[in-house]
Amino acid sequence: MSGSSREPPPGRAQFAQFSVIGTRWLDNDAYGHINNVVYYAYFDTVVNTFLMRATGCDIRQLPQIGVVAETGCRFFASLSFPQTLEVGLAVERLGQRSVTYRLGVFAEGAATAAALGKFVHVYVDAESRRPTDIPQRIRDAVAPLLVKD
Amino acid sequence: MSGSSREPPPGRAQFAQFSVIGTRWLDNDAYGHINNVVYYAYFDTVVNTFLMRATGCDIRQLPQIGVVAETGCRFFASLSFPQTLEVGLAVERLGQRSVTYRLGVFAEGAATAAALGKFVHVYVDAESRRPTDIPQRIRDAVAPLLVKD
Amino acid sequence: MSGSSREPPPGRAQFAQFSVIGTRWLDNDAYGHINNVVYYAYFDTVVNTFLMRATGCDIRQLPQIGVVAETGCRFFASLSFPQTLEVGLAVERLGQRSVTYRLGVFAEGAATAAALGKFVHVYVDAESRRPTDIPQRIRDAVAPLLVKD
Amino acid sequence: MSGSSREPPPGRAQFAQFSVIGTRWLDNDAYGHINNVVYYAYFDTVVNTFLMRATGCDIRQLPQIGVVAETGCRFFASLSFPQTLEVGLAVERLGQRSVTYRLGVFAEGAATAAALGKFVHVYVDAESRRPTDIPQRIRDAVAPLLVKD
Repeated sequence: MSGSSREPPPGRAQFAQFSVIGTRWLDNDAYGHINNVVYYAYFDTVVNTFLMRATGCDIRQLPQIGVVAETGCRFFASLSFPQTLEVGLAVERLGQRSVTYRLGVFAEGAATAAALGKFVHVYVDAESRRPTDIPQRIRDAVAPLLVKD
Repeated sequence: MSGSSREPPPGRAQFAQFSVIGTRWLDNDAYGHINNVVYYAYFDTVVNTFLMRATGCDIRQLPQIGVVAETGCRFFASLSFPQTLEVGLAVERLGQRSVTYRLGVFAEGAATAAALGKFVHVYVDAESRRPTDIPQRIRDAVAPLLVKD
Repeated sequence: MSGSSREPPPGRAQFAQFSVIGTRWLDNDAYGHINNVVYYAYFDTVVNTFLMRATGCDIRQLPQIGVVAETGCRFFASLSFPQTLEVGLAVERLGQRSVTYRLGVFAEGAATAAALGKFVHVYVDAESRRPTDIPQRIRDAVAPLLVKD
Repeated sequence: MSGSSREPPPGRAQFAQFSVIGTRWLDNDAYGHINNVVYYAYFDTVVNTFLMRATGCDIRQLPQIGVVAETGCRFFASLSFPQTLEVGLAVERLGQRSVTYRLGVFAEGAATAAALGKFVHVYVDAESRRPTDIPQRIRDAVAPLLVKD
């Protein structure tokens, strides 16, 4: 993650855009809160939905696809079904072959994030699975999300 | 299920109310469509969200809770992330101790359901897990969803 | 399901073979037991693992694939992570185009099932998704599981 | 994670013990490989199963519980249902209030890991959810897994 574990949870200004995510009954585990695993399902969903909308195409059909090389999450507060969530998205790093996303999971209307995520896509050829440059339409879509902090 | 497998998919008139459900990347399986298992996560979510809103309380904290005694689903058409879904809900049977829900999963704006579900809650004491009558506030909440077809 | 809801849970003799399934922390929901949805993930896994082993091929690559037309489950007793489960499998009906499986989820060593499932595969052409006959190698694999009760 | 993204995948010697995990049909996503999210379900399962066996008690009932403060994973190679997996477990850091686990997901028999995970439990009072010291029986259970590399 970007920073030490002593850092406070990020605020909304650290994200370029927000998506609404509904929770599900099964997102909660035996402790009655959303299980840590499920946050990664939110990340996957938010990044891929953004890419499909911003590129206007089904990214799963492109000759180059993004495979996940690294993910991570720090948890600051618990959330629970049936809360509705707002997930912030930004790009921390836009390389030649990889995109590093920052994700923040907020309770609806909350000022600070309950969880801060990292999600790294590395682009590969869909057939050979060999590394490739980020396709131009993906680069154009994610560039506006790049943050400078 | 209500009827033979030759029956056509139900229309919107067969449901008393609708909820919007967002799909997730991981809802799709290796065949590129929403996996059969995931429909049951929608059912769980729609029934419990309805009960929490209609009763105005956290049903997980009530002295009697609904445990799932039977579920089922017939699949008529495939759906896929990132589609947004509309899930119809009705009550087929309101007994002394159990509620049988009917659920219909529709692509956004579709006239007929892609899947028709059944979901049976039997009420038990939260401590002893012995059968009990349906709590009155649950009965009051679900009675308006009862259909006569 | 095969029979009325008053029927007792099935025993081991009603299944042709058994598989071991490990539970996961997230299989349990807020009530501390394996959520009803997760049983269908067991069914999917047991049926497809059986088919891959019995046919000796990756069934996802065959020109005809089985799509799920109907599923259902009746729940008799609760199970919970970290229990290890044994899932019984049998074929109730082997048609021209569809296979109806019976599944029983047993706690390790238990005489009767905690849940009884139904799972119907209808075969379609992998490209056109039009109905086809059951491929011969699938038919040969499942025929020995056919039960007569 | 322990180290830069240029580091090679870890070998088996970097883990103190191994568990077998079965994959499920739904673990695979639309790209036909186990989805990144699912690795975290393996981590959750392996850590909690270990704790239950090593302490000989249901850790969910203890007066202090471990809540997940941070997780992360680096992915080196893809895996796929119906593979059987072996998950290595070690403790990287044993603090006053938190335990940092290292997890390695290996294809059955593989010399190097397909994924390297990090999982941090912080202990809190089960009622107040305020931070507490690691309970002694947890500390005794995890101490033998502490590695020095």
